[in-house]
Amino acid sequence: MKRCTADILKALRQLMSRHQLNAYLVPSEDAHMSEYVADCDKRRAQLTGFTGSAGTALVTESEALMWTDGRYFLQAEQQMDSNWTLMRALAKDVPTLTEYLANRGFARVGFDPTTLPFGRFIEMRDSLAAGGTELVGLPDNLVDAVWTGRPERPLGRRLFLLTAEEAGAGPAEKLALLRQEMQKCKAGLLILSALDDVAWLFNYRAVGVIPMSPVLFAYAAVTPDSAHLFADLHESALAEFKQHVAETGVQLHAYAKFQSELEKLVAGSSGRVWLDHRASAAVGLPVPKARVYTADSPASVLKAVKYAPERAGMARAHVLDAVALCRYLHWLELQLAAGSPVTELSGSNQLDQLRSEMEGFVEISFETISGSGSNGAIIHYRVTPETDRPIVPDEAYLVDSGGHYRCGTTDVTRTVFYGAAPGAQLKRHYTLVLRGHIALSRLTFPENVLGSRLDTHARAALWTAGLEFQHGTGHGVGVFLNVHEGPCAISGSRANPHEIGLKRGMIVTIEPGFYLAGQYGIRVENVVEVVPQPGIAEGFDGLQFLTFKPLTLVPISTKLVDRSQLADEDVAWLNNYHAEVRQVVGDELKKRGFAETYEWLVRETEPI
Amino acid sequence: MKRCTADILKALRQLMSRHQLNAYLVPSEDAHMSEYVADCDKRRAQLTGFTGSAGTALVTESEALMWTDGRYFLQAEQQMDSNWTLMRALAKDVPTLTEYLANRGFARVGFDPTTLPFGRFIEMRDSLAAGGTELVGLPDNLVDAVWTGRPERPLGRRLFLLTAEEAGAGPAEKLALLRQEMQKCKAGLLILSALDDVAWLFNYRAVGVIPMSPVLFAYAAVTPDSAHLFADLHESALAEFKQHVAETGVQLHAYAKFQSELEKLVAGSSGRVWLDHRASAAVGLPVPKARVYTADSPASVLKAVKYAPERAGMARAHVLDAVALCRYLHWLELQLAAGSPVTELSGSNQLDQLRSEMEGFVEISFETISGSGSNGAIIHYRVTPETDRPIVPDEAYLVDSGGHYRCGTTDVTRTVFYGAAPGAQLKRHYTLVLRGHIALSRLTFPENVLGSRLDTHARAALWTAGLEFQHGTGHGVGVFLNVHEGPCAISGSRANPHEIGLKRGMIVTIEPGFYLAGQYGIRVENVVEVVPQPGIAEGFDGLQFLTFKPLTLVPISTKLVDRSQLADEDVAWLNNYHAEVRQVVGDELKKRGFAETYEWLVRETEPI
Repeated sequence: MKRCTADILKALRQLMSRHQLNAYLVPSEDAHMSEYVADCDKRRAQLTGFTGSAGTALVTESEALMWTDGRYFLQAEQQMDSNWTLMRALAKDVPTLTEYLANRGFARVGFDPTTLPFGRFIEMRDSLAAGGTELVGLPDNLVDAVWTGRPERPLGRRLFLLTAEEAGAGPAEKLALLRQEMQKCKAGLLILSALDDVAWLFNYRAVGVIPMSPVLFAYAAVTPDSAHLFADLHESALAEFKQHVAETGVQLHAYAKFQSELEKLVAGSSGRVWLDHRASAAVGLPVPKARVYTADSPASVLKAVKYAPERAGMARAHVLDAVALCRYLHWLELQLAAGSPVTELSGSNQLDQLRSEMEGFVEISFETISGSGSNGAIIHYRVTPETDRPIVPDEAYLVDSGGHYRCGTTDVTRTVFYGAAPGAQLKRHYTLVLRGHIALSRLTFPENVLGSRLDTHARAALWTAGLEFQHGTGHGVGVFLNVHEGPCAISGSRANPHEIGLKRGMIVTIEPGFYLAGQYGIRVENVVEVVPQPGIAEGFDGLQFLTFKPLTLVPISTKLVDRSQLADEDVAWLNNYHAEVRQVVGDELKKRGFAETYEWLVRETEPI
Repeated sequence: MKRCTADILKALRQLMSRHQLNAYLVPSEDAHMSEYVADCDKRRAQLTGFTGSAGTALVTESEALMWTDGRYFLQAEQQMDSNWTLMRALAKDVPTLTEYLANRGFARVGFDPTTLPFGRFIEMRDSLAAGGTELVGLPDNLVDAVWTGRPERPLGRRLFLLTAEEAGAGPAEKLALLRQEMQKCKAGLLILSALDDVAWLFNYRAVGVIPMSPVLFAYAAVTPDSAHLFADLHESALAEFKQHVAETGVQLHAYAKFQSELEKLVAGSSGRVWLDHRASAAVGLPVPKARVYTADSPASVLKAVKYAPERAGMARAHVLDAVALCRYLHWLELQLAAGSPVTELSGSNQLDQLRSEMEGFVEISFETISGSGSNGAIIHYRVTPETDRPIVPDEAYLVDSGGHYRCGTTDVTRTVFYGAAPGAQLKRHYTLVLRGHIALSRLTFPENVLGSRLDTHARAALWTAGLEFQHGTGHGVGVFLNVHEGPCAISGSRANPHEIGLKRGMIVTIEPGFYLAGQYGIRVENVVEVVPQPGIAEGFDGLQFLTFKPLTLVPISTKLVDRSQLADEDVAWLNNYHAEVRQVVGDELKKRGFAETYEWLVRETEPI
């Protein structure tokens, strides 16, 4: 359904005229370049009607243009009314935003500096300067000004304050580590822009601010002798929070005070000002050019290597999560066997319910992908009432889901089949995906190797059959924090300049797949911990050699496996994995009195 | 031996004073960022006494500093006299060149704009500008002015003019392809700075200008309706060359006219000016900032995919080269069996001699690495009279060598052992290297995958044993052109922003190794062609699937193989490879009457 955008465009153009702007730029990003965006920050969606995650709008005096990529062409056409022109990014003869602006030769293009990454702003500014076009940063967002009924920015209300024992280190210790990194780089001021970096630093988590991302709207600023947190807490949470951070000496400021305090902090400090890659133009612009130091956030880099209690918490979260997922898969089998209808949506709701029964469960960590048959072939499928379909025994069913628990975050995908006998092609494809999963899981590699250099090991088996999947092989996972966490990953399609090498104690996913449009989707995903390779005390030239240890402990369908296509080593890996699943998760199921699910687990973990 | 640099430094400082410079910068690069540098361009070596390939000198009024990397610390200390201070790049507390300059706060730092890549110049200029330091480009090189007895820049004298049939396309057709690329990118002027790009475009090769690199000193400039070649040819070659390029309408200019003509071409053209990544500051500075377009050279990208006659020529060159190398390895076996002394150097000379007897041989394509025992463990070893040692039967012997033939260029490494029985450790390491070589050689992969994503397949076997090698796995190879050719490669240690994906018809090396300091080096290197994977007519989503086909046809030592450590598929690959070597190279040996070498070949290619 299209929303009429005539009124909001008219109001915006009036404001543009008042500011003498030829155009106004509306990106999708919030001020922290967050993956999930709060409702109050969905300005591009409000303006255009298009609700997809990626897109940039540009409103001129006579035109309204929206750039998005191929994933969203159809959705954008369906959602945008005739006031808008869709700009198909990368399509032939479609200019980029910068090219378009350069061609038009506007004098003044307005934007909100919090919504553009600083690096991108510099690039655009420099390439437009030659043509006389000025990018004009306005402190107040013009879309906000014309947005009737814009939601309030949510306060931190339901807070989780992690002890140093839970988190592995207290905020004072983490501040000291950041200051060490600052000293190495001659930085006199560090600004943390990423919301999960700030939550990590101060050992808090928050629910109800950004869906599925347990963070607050916040910035942190660190100097050699002071620390500042800019965040709005509900008064019910304030006293306890102040006590929580008392030993750090951190000064608490209102979130809205960040911009004015930043200017004071820059003026009052010396040396470089360290900005991370999430910093917006609003953060970078007040810093004198010669003092700007842009590099990976040291908090992101430190956060990627988990402390021992975090690793233990993640392992525990995955056992809890496995209980819920095993109960779901068992329940689903029973329902289908009894002929009781289950749909993708009702199944997904049942899974949410079972997760919510686990102790320490907080919320789901991302929107569940529950896809049966051809819906499973849509990589980023989200079931809606319109697309919902029954889960039936004779189709492959793909379920990708996860939860935030007080002790950790999970992300697991299984592909199952409840019919009598899967087709030969489905078995062949499933076995190729599984071979890739096992090949990467079994790999031994030296410390600090980039994960992007390992990703093809999860693809090589599919490649032998002329098959490929079009998504990354794995991503970092936060500890009761963002389910997609940088800067380590196992993804090679696009080179990521911010990627860092794999180290002992990092936690990532391994999730190869295969998607046959109109028929089925297959994905096998575990969360794994980077651990020393047993048996190699010290490698060549003092290198430590590492491998992956699965944290996810949920049966991998053996019904879909073509045993003859697995090497002996692959079979041994699978049987060992299932033995551990049966042992660890089996104990939990028995302890909790889920005797029938335990019997199901025993069947599902039989050696092949 | 140290050369005294007092006089040249004194003379340089006088010139610096005349130009009011606080410092003068002397990089190692020639004006084309060539891998091999002609003697007349070895300014940094002339100034400092240090002859290594990488290093940057900076002379101030009171200091003389030379930055180089860890490979060269020892050599630089041995070669530089006390006037010079060695700056150990990346060592603790050693500033980078830019940091040093920023700290010193000089007003004017001089340099020759032809010796700095344009991109690096921009970075340095911008980061020094804030501190008030100006980089001053001087048209004449100050080291040249004080260099007594500087060699003349060599003219093109011995030219090879390739027919369109040999090269796959004539210069007019290649110009048309370049103009198509220019049109796509809205470029009105293209400057080719890389010497091999210019040689490729005009289908010439030249010997005697730069050692081992069959090119001329040249620039090319292309507009939609004109083409310009800046190069100095000896008059004996001129008439034939003019005829060779007659149909292109190219205007020939003296090499020294490039700078002044460039300014006219920029002024006389419209649209973007396309500079490749080899362009020096001298090329970039005359171009208005808004018109600069820096991207991969379209000639490099086109050149990487070989035409059918080029592929056939490369295959033929490898057969010719295999005859020479088989004769050498057989000869060496006989010498050692007879107790006749052979050293690394005399062996290398014998190999050169045998190559030179092959029809179409022009010169070697790089300095031969001939390393016995512990010398083989030095990755970039070059034998000198000082390091020379006998090749003895009980040591592993590594020989990495190649030639330029009229029809193609070769690069091959074999590791052999002529003793009774190699030690268990050597066999184990050799077998791990071979497993890596075979794993990558057998890989199936989709078109356009970056080679850097495949490189770990050549390492995974070594990694299982906690071992690693510290060089790239493979590089592109030119056709009777540079033995190291971009922009495709199979090397993942450093992300290369200019790397392009693998396509059918590209030619690269596969050369994993292992080096045990003080004991031995192992490397097994083939040149391979990227070919369609037989049996996959069309892959998923229309992707073409590819694999590697060895062009190098020289026996791989089986004496060093631990058969029990190879999978059946690896054994099958090796036996198939040897069957082809025996067939193809065996026929050549018989045809040429090398009956004993043929018998040796049969023994060396016995199935295992």
